[in-house]
Amino acid sequence: MYVQAGFNVPEETTLNLEQLEDAVLAALEGDETARLESLLAPLHPGDIAELIARIPLSELRIAVFRHVPDELAGDVLDLVPEVIQDELVEDLTPTELVEAVQEMSPDDAADLITDLEPAEQKELLENIPQEQSDAIRDLMRYPSDTAGGLMTPQFTALQAGTTAGQAIDILRRVADSDHEVFYYVYVVDARNKLLGALSLRDLLLARSHQLVDDCMITNVYSVDVMTDQEEVARTFKRYGYLALPVVDTENRLLGVVTVDDIIEVIQDEDSEDVQKMVGAGGDEGIDSALTLSIRRRLPWLKVNMVTAFLAAGVVSFFQDLIERNVVLAVFLPFCAMMAGNAGQQALAVVIRGVVLDTAASRRWFRILGRELCLGCVNGSIIGALTGLVVYFFSNPHNPVLAVLIGAALMATMMTASVSGAGIPLLMRRIGFDPAQGSTVILTTITDVVGFGFFLGLARLLEPWFASPAP
Amino acid sequence: MYVQAGFNVPEETTLNLEQLEDAVLAALEGDETARLESLLAPLHPGDIAELIARIPLSELRIAVFRHVPDELAGDVLDLVPEVIQDELVEDLTPTELVEAVQEMSPDDAADLITDLEPAEQKELLENIPQEQSDAIRDLMRYPSDTAGGLMTPQFTALQAGTTAGQAIDILRRVADSDHEVFYYVYVVDARNKLLGALSLRDLLLARSHQLVDDCMITNVYSVDVMTDQEEVARTFKRYGYLALPVVDTENRLLGVVTVDDIIEVIQDEDSEDVQKMVGAGGDEGIDSALTLSIRRRLPWLKVNMVTAFLAAGVVSFFQDLIERNVVLAVFLPFCAMMAGNAGQQALAVVIRGVVLDTAASRRWFRILGRELCLGCVNGSIIGALTGLVVYFFSNPHNPVLAVLIGAALMATMMTASVSGAGIPLLMRRIGFDPAQGSTVILTTITDVVGFGFFLGLARLLEPWFASPAP
Repeated sequence: MYVQAGFNVPEETTLNLEQLEDAVLAALEGDETARLESLLAPLHPGDIAELIARIPLSELRIAVFRHVPDELAGDVLDLVPEVIQDELVEDLTPTELVEAVQEMSPDDAADLITDLEPAEQKELLENIPQEQSDAIRDLMRYPSDTAGGLMTPQFTALQAGTTAGQAIDILRRVADSDHEVFYYVYVVDARNKLLGALSLRDLLLARSHQLVDDCMITNVYSVDVMTDQEEVARTFKRYGYLALPVVDTENRLLGVVTVDDIIEVIQDEDSEDVQKMVGAGGDEGIDSALTLSIRRRLPWLKVNMVTAFLAAGVVSFFQDLIERNVVLAVFLPFCAMMAGNAGQQALAVVIRGVVLDTAASRRWFRILGRELCLGCVNGSIIGALTGLVVYFFSNPHNPVLAVLIGAALMATMMTASVSGAGIPLLMRRIGFDPAQGSTVILTTITDVVGFGFFLGLARLLEPWFASPAP
Repeated sequence: MYVQAGFNVPEETTLNLEQLEDAVLAALEGDETARLESLLAPLHPGDIAELIARIPLSELRIAVFRHVPDELAGDVLDLVPEVIQDELVEDLTPTELVEAVQEMSPDDAADLITDLEPAEQKELLENIPQEQSDAIRDLMRYPSDTAGGLMTPQFTALQAGTTAGQAIDILRRVADSDHEVFYYVYVVDARNKLLGALSLRDLLLARSHQLVDDCMITNVYSVDVMTDQEEVARTFKRYGYLALPVVDTENRLLGVVTVDDIIEVIQDEDSEDVQKMVGAGGDEGIDSALTLSIRRRLPWLKVNMVTAFLAAGVVSFFQDLIERNVVLAVFLPFCAMMAGNAGQQALAVVIRGVVLDTAASRRWFRILGRELCLGCVNGSIIGALTGLVVYFFSNPHNPVLAVLIGAALMATMMTASVSGAGIPLLMRRIGFDPAQGSTVILTTITDVVGFGFFLGLARLLEPWFASPAP
C-alpha cells in the first residue's frame, strides 16, 4: 500500500525510463556507485520498480536493487512484478532481506513472507523486531484473497470520548511513526469495537473541544475479516469509498483495506476471466513456473480431447457420405471455425456483462434473444457470402452445395451465438464461475451440433449435389 | 465521482437487496408513496442504483426512480448501468431531467449529456444555472477517454502565500458548498499555474501561521488534460495515488482525476481485451444496440471467413488423399480444436502479461521459449493419449495412423502455443493493440499450419496406414 504524494522528480510528467535505464546500466558497468545512487535517490519507488522490471538480466537487476536507498528498498521490492520479486528475494543475503522487509508495511511484508519456505519464513521473522513480526504473523493467519489478507493493521483508531483537539495531537504524534495516517480515522470503544468513523476533513472542521463521538458517522460500512476479496472490491465499487474498516465477528476493528489494494484485485479478477475461459489458470502469468502452467492447462486440454472425440464421433458417423463427397471434408473445419468465432464473440460479451453487472442474469431472456438475433443476422450474411463463393468457384457450379453450406453456416452460427450467451448465464445460475472452461464447453456444443447439422443436411440433399465418384 | 463516507444504513454490512426489492415493488404496486420513500431515503445512492438495476421492467424502474430523494437522484442516475441510465433519461420529463442533472457533479453530468442528441443537449444546458452549465460545457470539450474527460473541476486550489490557518477557513467555507473537498489541496500562483500540493494531513499538522508554500510538496505529479485514460490509469497504479491534478500545456490547473474514476477505467480496459481478442467490440455490452454489435462483430467474422477459405484451400489440396482415407476427415477438426485450445491458452496468458506489465515484451525470447516448452509437453501428452485411443479403437489396430495423429497433434499444439505467445508480442512491437482480433489470427495460423502438417505427413505415411478402398 502506497499513498503518499509527491517525490522529488524531474519536472516532466512521464519519466524517460529508457534514457534512465541506459544511464543506470552505464553507471553500473563503470562501477560508478555514487553516480548510480544519485540517479536512483530522487525517484519514486514506483519508478525504480518499473526501471528494474525493464532490465533484462537478473544479475543486473539485483545489482541495481542493491543501490536503492535503504528507506525505499521495501517499497521497491513490493512494487516489482511478482516473478522479479521472487528472484530478488532469492538473490538477496538474509541480512539484506531482513533490512528490506523491515521497511515494508506489514501487509506487504506478510504477502512476501507467505511465499517463502517455512524455514525461511521462520528465520526472517526471528530477525525483525518483535512488534513488527507479531503484526506480520497476525496478518499471515488470513487467506490472501480475503479482506484480512488485503488489510493493513496500520490505521488510526481513537477512543470514544476523545476531543477533536486531542485527536489532532494524536495524529501529529503518529504521523512521525510508521502509521499510515489516512483519510479516515476510526472511533472504537474500550473493547476495540468499531463505533464510528470520521474523515480528516471532519476533524479539520470540528471545534477543538468537540468530542469525536459527536462529529463521527455512526453507521459505518465495514467488512468481515474473512470476506472474499471480490466481494470487498464490489463494496468499494458500489460506494466509491477510499477505505473500508475490517472487523471480526464481534465488530472489533482489525485493520483497514484501502482503495489502491482494491485496484489490484479488480485488475487480477478481470484478467483472470480471459484465462479461465480458455482453461488456463486464473493465477497463471508469463513468468509462472512451467509445472504450474502444465498443471493448470493440461486438465482442460484433456477435457477438450474427450469432447473432441465426441465431435469426431459425429463426423465418423457420416464417413460413407464424406467418402462419396470429399468436398464436405473441406468445409467441415470451415464451419467449425466460423461457428467457434461467432460463439466466442457472444461468450466474451455476455461473460463481461454477467461479471460487471450482477443483476444482468435476471434479464437472461432478453440477452439470449439478443444473441439469437445477432447469430441470425451475422449467420445469414456470412452464410450467403460463403454460399456465393462456393457457387462461383465450384466447377461445375453447384447450387445445392452452395445452399447446403450457406444454410449450415447460418444454423451453426445461430446455435453458437445462443450457446455463447447461454453458457455463462447457466453457469452463474447453478453457482459456477461463469468463465471457467467456457470456451471448451462452447466448442463442444458448436462442433457436435454444427457437424451433426451440416452432415445431416448433406445426407438429405446428397441426391442433388453429389458429384459422380472419380 | 463519489467519495463520501457513511450513509445511514441498517447495521448489517450487506444489504439484503432481494427483500428490499420485494418491499419496494409491493409499496409501488399498492401506491404507498410514503412507504416507498421511507424505504429509499436511508439508502446509499450505490444501493439504490443496484436496486433499480435489479428490477426487470423499465416502467417499474422509472417509477422507483421518481421516488428517490431529490438530492440523491443525480448520484443514482450516475451509478446505474449505462443502458438503464439511457432508458431513465429517455423516460424522464425534461424538468425531471434538469433537476437530476443539477444534483450531479459536473464531470458526471458532462458524461451523461455527451450521450444525448445535440438538440437535447442544448435544451438541457439552457435550463440549468449558468455557472453549472459553463462548467459542464468546459468538460464536454475533452474526449471522454482523456484525463480531461475523467477529471472533476470541483477541487480546492489555494493561492500561494495563504497561511495554514486561512486555508482551513477556506476549506470550512467550501465544505458547505458543492466542492468536493478532497484529500489533497493544490497551491497555484496568480495565473493559476500549479505550484504544489499538500494533503489535508499536512494542513492538519501545520502551525496556523505557516505558509502553505512552506509545507507543500513542490514537485507534484500531474497529467496533461489530453493524456489518454490508459496512461492516466498506469500513473495511478504505478504510484498508488488517490488523486492527480490535471493541467494544460502551460501547467495551469484545470481539474483533478480521482482514483474511483480510475477503477472504472481499469475495469473497462481489461474486460475490453477479451472482447477484442475474439473480434467483438471493446465497447460492446449485453445491452448495446443490435446495430452496434453487428457493426463490431461482422467485420471480424468476414476476416475469419477469408482465412477459413485459406484453411479450406489447404484441405482441398489433399482431397484425393482424404477420399482414399476418409478417417483423416474425422481427425481434421479434432486437430483444429485441440490446437485452437492450446493456442488460446498461450494467447490469454501472454496478452494479460503484456498488458499488465509493459516491460514484459522485452523478455520476448524467454516468453516464446516458455510457450514452446509448454506446447511441447502438453502436445506430447495429448498426442500420446490420442494416439493410444486411436490405436485401440481402430479396427484392425492401425499403429501408423495412431503415430500420424499423435505426431500431428504434438506439432500443431507446439505451433499453436508459440503462435499464441508470438502474436501479442509482435502486435505490440509494431504498435498495434495486442488483443485486437488476435484469436482470428491465431486460428488462421494453427489451421493452415496444422492442416498442412497433418495432411502432408499423412501423404508421406499413406503407403503404411492406408486401408484398402471399399
